[in-house]
Amino acid sequence: MPVPKFLQSQRELNAVPKRDFVLSFFNMEVHALTKPLQWDQEEGAILLLDQRKLPRELDYWRCRTIGELALAIRQMAIRGAPSLALAGAFGMALAAWENRSQPITAAKKAIEDAKSVLQCSRPTAVNLRWAIDRVWRKITNASTPDELIQKALEEARAIEEEIQLVHRQLAGYGVSLVPDGAQIYHHCHTGALAGGGFGTALGIILQAFQSGKKLHVFVGETRPLLQGARLTAWELARAGIPHTVVVDSASGSLMRSGHIHLCFVGADRIAANGDTANKIGTYTLAVLARYHDIPFYVAAPTSTIDLASPGGEAIPVEERPAEEVTSLVSYRWVPEESRVANPAFDVTPADLITAIITECGVLRPPYTSSIRQALAKREN
Amino acid sequence: MPVPKFLQSQRELNAVPKRDFVLSFFNMEVHALTKPLQWDQEEGAILLLDQRKLPRELDYWRCRTIGELALAIRQMAIRGAPSLALAGAFGMALAAWENRSQPITAAKKAIEDAKSVLQCSRPTAVNLRWAIDRVWRKITNASTPDELIQKALEEARAIEEEIQLVHRQLAGYGVSLVPDGAQIYHHCHTGALAGGGFGTALGIILQAFQSGKKLHVFVGETRPLLQGARLTAWELARAGIPHTVVVDSASGSLMRSGHIHLCFVGADRIAANGDTANKIGTYTLAVLARYHDIPFYVAAPTSTIDLASPGGEAIPVEERPAEEVTSLVSYRWVPEESRVANPAFDVTPADLITAIITECGVLRPPYTSSIRQALAKREN
Repeated sequence: MPVPKFLQSQRELNAVPKRDFVLSFFNMEVHALTKPLQWDQEEGAILLLDQRKLPRELDYWRCRTIGELALAIRQMAIRGAPSLALAGAFGMALAAWENRSQPITAAKKAIEDAKSVLQCSRPTAVNLRWAIDRVWRKITNASTPDELIQKALEEARAIEEEIQLVHRQLAGYGVSLVPDGAQIYHHCHTGALAGGGFGTALGIILQAFQSGKKLHVFVGETRPLLQGARLTAWELARAGIPHTVVVDSASGSLMRSGHIHLCFVGADRIAANGDTANKIGTYTLAVLARYHDIPFYVAAPTSTIDLASPGGEAIPVEERPAEEVTSLVSYRWVPEESRVANPAFDVTPADLITAIITECGVLRPPYTSSIRQALAKREN
Repeated sequence: MPVPKFLQSQRELNAVPKRDFVLSFFNMEVHALTKPLQWDQEEGAILLLDQRKLPRELDYWRCRTIGELALAIRQMAIRGAPSLALAGAFGMALAAWENRSQPITAAKKAIEDAKSVLQCSRPTAVNLRWAIDRVWRKITNASTPDELIQKALEEARAIEEEIQLVHRQLAGYGVSLVPDGAQIYHHCHTGALAGGGFGTALGIILQAFQSGKKLHVFVGETRPLLQGARLTAWELARAGIPHTVVVDSASGSLMRSGHIHLCFVGADRIAANGDTANKIGTYTLAVLARYHDIPFYVAAPTSTIDLASPGGEAIPVEERPAEEVTSLVSYRWVPEESRVANPAFDVTPADLITAIITECGVLRPPYTSSIRQALAKREN
């Protein structure tokens, strides 16, 4: 697959720190498109592919401290529940590295503080906490600072491998739900960058396409941060999967006109009863799917399930900065290869309208007669 | 009411061509906030308040030719069904002015050509055609080019006065539907700028507020062109009405959490059976309102009703340029006075989810047991 045009400029390639990493990035298989982060053993740092700048720029954020990593997570340079698990896991190794010259007790205390900082950086995704706790349990009995680093790295790498295996298994189950010729609506981004190297919902879509099924994906742009328009469209374009980007509010009329056969979304946390927290707009989409009798699928590893939350009411919803809504970066953020649909209007059937208010009065159903009466009244 | 901060800079005031127009603009009553256009008798031109640049800049577009006016309409420097009627009506006067030195027959022929150009500039809004046809009928028997101009202007001014009267009547009916303390969801923009000088749905909201009712308006930003975030928020801020701007996809979870008591939208065309064409996303909102048992009101003058369209299928939906979706201007477009809500996630209740796909298999309802089974399977 050729390098997309929007990544060919010298400036963008110059921004990339390590050539072999770039090569592996471009040569990866379709189902393992992108690594969201990697550990730099020489410097003791985490190298994040900055998801805020894609698809325009391939830029990396080298996090050398826990404070910097927490900032990168809060600012969503890395995002997506499984990728956040990776950030948390390698973050524990980073904390160990930062404190490698401390006595062991002080180092452990410092890592415990780092643990709290990382856990609070995003409140909704449960995978972040899960991974941090898991690494913590592995390292508490280490007896030297070097052992702390080594054990944390071992466990983080084990989590990385597990996530990819688990997502491949998940994709295997999901593919059976995708009929040949399916037109799929997808919200937010659930690809490799979000999924710790192998996507969840988008992993299913990629796998189904690779298995020879014809597909068309309608990509909800996903305001405010446009993860759909920027990242999902980017991964689909690289994989050669036909897709069309639309504004989020177009989902309803696409369903009504028969363009959507099924919906796929990911999850940030699933309560014990199945209530699912995910990117704002997921609920809106689910109601629309129900109304139009379209299957609505959530794809997530079981690490996303939080038995401590009995139902959705127990899940905290993060309120993010207003600036994400009030302004935006100023460049074309949809890949050049992506088709875009931009219908300016939709038609709301009369039976969904409570009343039509005109200068001749409040018209109620049945409208065919109330409209005629109003117009007749106007003529007199 | 003081001039909002974002309009105080010298540069912005310098952009305004006539001082008395600016003064009248700031001194207008709350329910007649803004004139979308005015006729310049000295130059024979239409002066449009450029809605694309609000609220950041108060800039005017002086249209001296029909070609320029059609471009301004297509690019949505002027928009909103009733304001488009005004643009069409005064556009006929502009066509007469442009051809004032022609013999009468040639002038009429040129106006007839201009009529087609204007009618095609936006295909969905029926008010544009309605106003153009009405002016045309009034001028066909004119015997001199001067009489063409004079009769066209007379009729355009009559239409302008009528629109404002009709919208006041409409608002009178609508106010009775707004309870004290109402929390209203509003989509797109239906205020004075869209409504030919007095809004439709937003006219009702302003009138209800003026009558002493406590209100809070949730303003859907309305992608792609953000008429809600820019224009509705601007008119609400100037009127001092409490409001919160949200991304469009947040409407569902706002309804579920009980924040919305009723929905108000405008209309671009209403079919004889009541099916209503309006800004993309209106249908999505209507389905959500039905699902949550919330009243969904359309506010529109009867000139919006098109008996020639028996139902929604007969209404053409305009497909607009992809660039509106793929990129945006780069400034804060929400007024400084407007509150913004930015929840990052929502919670989708389990009963709306067809299946949850995990690495342990496809979980089906009831989830409380299928989740437990999957996790138990994973442990073994």
